[in-house]
Amino acid sequence: MGLSYRAPLRDMRFVIDEVLQAPAGWSQLPGLTDLDANTAAQVLEQAAVFASEVLAPTNADGDLHGCTWSDGQVDTPPGFRAAWRAFVDAGWPALGCDPDWGGQGLPQLLNVALYEMLNAANHAWTMYPGLAHGAYECLKAHANAELQQRYLPKIVSGEWLATMCLTESHAGSDLGLLRTRALPQADGTLQVSGTKIFISGGAHDLTDNIVHLVLCRLPDAPAGTKGLSLVLVPRLLPDGTPNRVRCNGIEKKMGIKGSATCTMSFDAATGWLIGEPHRGLAAMFVMMNAARLQVALQGLGHLEIATQNALLYARERRQMRAPQRASSAHNEPADPIAAHPAMRRTLWTLQAWTEGQRVLAYWTAQLLDESERQPDLARRERAAALLPLLTPIVKAMFTEHGHTGASMALQVWGGHGYIHEVGIEQHVRDARIAMVYEGTNEIQAIDLLVRKLLPAGGRPLDLLCEALDSEAEASEQVPGLAAAAAVLQTASAGLRDATRALAVDAAVEPELPWRLADDYLRAAGLVLLGWAWLRSARVATPHQDDPWYARKLQCALFGLEWLLPDVDALLRRIISRRAALPPLPDA
Amino acid sequence: MGLSYRAPLRDMRFVIDEVLQAPAGWSQLPGLTDLDANTAAQVLEQAAVFASEVLAPTNADGDLHGCTWSDGQVDTPPGFRAAWRAFVDAGWPALGCDPDWGGQGLPQLLNVALYEMLNAANHAWTMYPGLAHGAYECLKAHANAELQQRYLPKIVSGEWLATMCLTESHAGSDLGLLRTRALPQADGTLQVSGTKIFISGGAHDLTDNIVHLVLCRLPDAPAGTKGLSLVLVPRLLPDGTPNRVRCNGIEKKMGIKGSATCTMSFDAATGWLIGEPHRGLAAMFVMMNAARLQVALQGLGHLEIATQNALLYARERRQMRAPQRASSAHNEPADPIAAHPAMRRTLWTLQAWTEGQRVLAYWTAQLLDESERQPDLARRERAAALLPLLTPIVKAMFTEHGHTGASMALQVWGGHGYIHEVGIEQHVRDARIAMVYEGTNEIQAIDLLVRKLLPAGGRPLDLLCEALDSEAEASEQVPGLAAAAAVLQTASAGLRDATRALAVDAAVEPELPWRLADDYLRAAGLVLLGWAWLRSARVATPHQDDPWYARKLQCALFGLEWLLPDVDALLRRIISRRAALPPLPDA
Repeated sequence: MGLSYRAPLRDMRFVIDEVLQAPAGWSQLPGLTDLDANTAAQVLEQAAVFASEVLAPTNADGDLHGCTWSDGQVDTPPGFRAAWRAFVDAGWPALGCDPDWGGQGLPQLLNVALYEMLNAANHAWTMYPGLAHGAYECLKAHANAELQQRYLPKIVSGEWLATMCLTESHAGSDLGLLRTRALPQADGTLQVSGTKIFISGGAHDLTDNIVHLVLCRLPDAPAGTKGLSLVLVPRLLPDGTPNRVRCNGIEKKMGIKGSATCTMSFDAATGWLIGEPHRGLAAMFVMMNAARLQVALQGLGHLEIATQNALLYARERRQMRAPQRASSAHNEPADPIAAHPAMRRTLWTLQAWTEGQRVLAYWTAQLLDESERQPDLARRERAAALLPLLTPIVKAMFTEHGHTGASMALQVWGGHGYIHEVGIEQHVRDARIAMVYEGTNEIQAIDLLVRKLLPAGGRPLDLLCEALDSEAEASEQVPGLAAAAAVLQTASAGLRDATRALAVDAAVEPELPWRLADDYLRAAGLVLLGWAWLRSARVATPHQDDPWYARKLQCALFGLEWLLPDVDALLRRIISRRAALPPLPDA
Repeated sequence: MGLSYRAPLRDMRFVIDEVLQAPAGWSQLPGLTDLDANTAAQVLEQAAVFASEVLAPTNADGDLHGCTWSDGQVDTPPGFRAAWRAFVDAGWPALGCDPDWGGQGLPQLLNVALYEMLNAANHAWTMYPGLAHGAYECLKAHANAELQQRYLPKIVSGEWLATMCLTESHAGSDLGLLRTRALPQADGTLQVSGTKIFISGGAHDLTDNIVHLVLCRLPDAPAGTKGLSLVLVPRLLPDGTPNRVRCNGIEKKMGIKGSATCTMSFDAATGWLIGEPHRGLAAMFVMMNAARLQVALQGLGHLEIATQNALLYARERRQMRAPQRASSAHNEPADPIAAHPAMRRTLWTLQAWTEGQRVLAYWTAQLLDESERQPDLARRERAAALLPLLTPIVKAMFTEHGHTGASMALQVWGGHGYIHEVGIEQHVRDARIAMVYEGTNEIQAIDLLVRKLLPAGGRPLDLLCEALDSEAEASEQVPGLAAAAAVLQTASAGLRDATRALAVDAAVEPELPWRLADDYLRAAGLVLLGWAWLRSARVATPHQDDPWYARKLQCALFGLEWLLPDVDALLRRIISRRAALPPLPDA
């Protein structure tokens, strides 16, 4: 029952080793100098076995049974505990963590590849380790030494899990409205009181302790987001007794039913301040790029599993005659669905999205590694400057494609796709949440255009366009790629022009960029996919006598010829949509 | 729990009375000459009470409980039986039926407005009467007098329900592969044997008898679709004893869980031939336009309820400051979501789609009435020629917007939208099936472009473009509409040009239109929406001092200024996408 998952190891290695040439870079990054391509590949092979054989088989059952709540306790679905134990026993939580805290010190790039697989296999389950990894990053950057020593090794080993407690019922996207209170005590601890909703993994049966990172207000806090402090509130106190934290219930949701979405009440619970008072949001934002990349990987994971299964089904299932009969079908009463042009276009689109997005995800991870380890200051700063631009784009674009791509894939199954047992409909439902959480996709678009680009007159974009232009230059001499390179160059220039035009016009009509931010992010995302396809095509071209590389080249060319030209329409929209957007009248 | 539904009676009346001026037309149509606008409005008011107060409250429970199967029997969810009884007692199944069979003889237009409301209130429940109405049309057109007398009055009264039994597990879109057999018996009956899947309403507890219309093959049938015969197989034989028909199980689905999707086995069941041997598909196709319009109304219904609820929520829920602060929010810590530009754009888009699609749906119904009743031959033929073009467009476009619009609306609720209790996520799930059944949306696009337009060199489109151009001419003198009228005229000319170009190019590359059919249908649909918006704007303009009409005008102008220009990009795509669409390599 449900879809099967085969980790696309060769495609991953193509991106890591050939497109991004990451192993060559590792030799210059402290801590990674001993890592080579084959070792990395072996790590991913092991991860693939876990994802395909242990985790994927728990996905459909997780959806069917969901989590169950009883008197404050939450049970995860059948199979989740066993998968968690296997994951911990194999040391996977430690993969991308610092050896100082028991981690394996491997690059973010490999952690990202691991999480692509985990999310494809079981998005709901992967919420548990994903959030713990976020908490690890946060504690590592901001907690004092005592808290680090008490909590980091247990999180790195997977003995304990963790949560982020942000949302309250009246405060979703608007954290400035948060009300949860933290009262300082004589012993230096804090007493935390308040109710948080939508807390993923707030209670479960995977680990005995759960480390909650809670955004709240100290008594002297200013109003708004500048008065938020971050407090660590463990489920079990250091002496092993239960803290005053309770799960009051879990939500019945559209999807990711195996991930417990909890209402958590803190009733004078004991906590410890992380970082400075009133600087909680800054502490959380440190891990924002990593967390948003994590969510992007949920989109990529859904897209990959939907695509590979749709392809399998479309090759097997025969319905009607295609206008160009499949060569294999002469003795059959109908052609495979894959031979029908509308479905072929769908399947190529899904593949092009998946492969282009994998390049972008792994590139982002490569830049994360460089931003953390690169000794060359200029290169480290370039990486650090690119990340804040790439992050909102990959978060919003991947999650949109993850959901709509799964829905496009459902269409390949026809009526069977709507049946739970087949499995694709679960991915459509599970993928939908990623467009909402960790900052809605609309907030990502505003973050990119209104917060990051326009205040600087659009100049940060130049760095991105340099990467685009240098790929276009490298590709224009490659046989068969000159036209595509020109299209990318035009798209890059068009994006720069549109950004400048928006910066100018926003001075006159300040609301304008807020109205067009979603179009802008989609245009920027598609241009980046163009970069990824062109780069992949350039790398594959010399080997195209090999059918595997020939297919890579075809897929990239499909993206460049069928999908990239839509940038033009998006940019036109940005230029032409000057019409009023009237307020909504009252009811 | 779940969304509430308020039937948009005034909006409906605006379309019927003012935009389409339908009541003036009724005076010329035999059987409708006594019907006036107020009587029609009273019918819709009564329907609104049923839909909002009786049916809508059963929707969320229907999803939660679903149907249950036990030993061949199916129970519908709590509330479904009571709603059905109320529906039958009020005579609603008879609304659009012929008085000769006990019907009320009202126009299709009112039946379409009724079904918009029913589908908005509860799509799953509405499957039961919707399919019965299809069977009514089929029997009325093709069954012999004896069968008509035996079955039509009971279907019209709602005493019995009915199904369409087409799909078999290996034959979804491809009916030519069907295998169910019908063996003639000495007494003139047929013995039907075979297994059908995905039979909506194949078994339930709403009525004791269920009339199955089964596509099957007689012993001497040719292969393919030309060997299919249509056979009536009742659950209960005329003497009241059970026929050899059994429901072997129901599907667990993504949505419409209150609609029983049954596997039906016919084991030498007794049946009667409907129409001519081997002409079963033709008999079914007669009701195809009506059935596809029914499915389009599911899309419209979901869009309407999603839109009205998203608007309500967006006006109440406050999050963050909008760039232009809402006037009502000066004393509040945050602005309503409706004031934020990205959400405002979403909400206007939803409203413009809903209102434009209502015009198109009701226009299609008006043409159905004309095609059935218009004494003026030229007008009757015009209506009959427009329907086959409008039908695939409204089916595919409305169902796509129904699903994606519900998903856009979900985004307005943020994380709350993902919670079952809120209700919007059910509409996203329920709406998804309509893109698949009654001919997938890809099949609609092929039907429009490849089957209907190109074989005639694109000429049937001229009739549609005449309607577009005459609206553009009528509007260009209206203050404020000249620019929009010009855009519509350009779009209409562009659609005609693209069609001719495709007809020419297809002669050289026959597969081309199959690849571009989806873009083509989307372009044609958007141009039609442009027509609907312009017409609505023209009608509302003289009354714009009235805030209600001013909002109508704003909504139509939003559609014309923000959405219609995308036609340009779609047409460019059709012109420019000449790149190869390579076959998919084997695994």
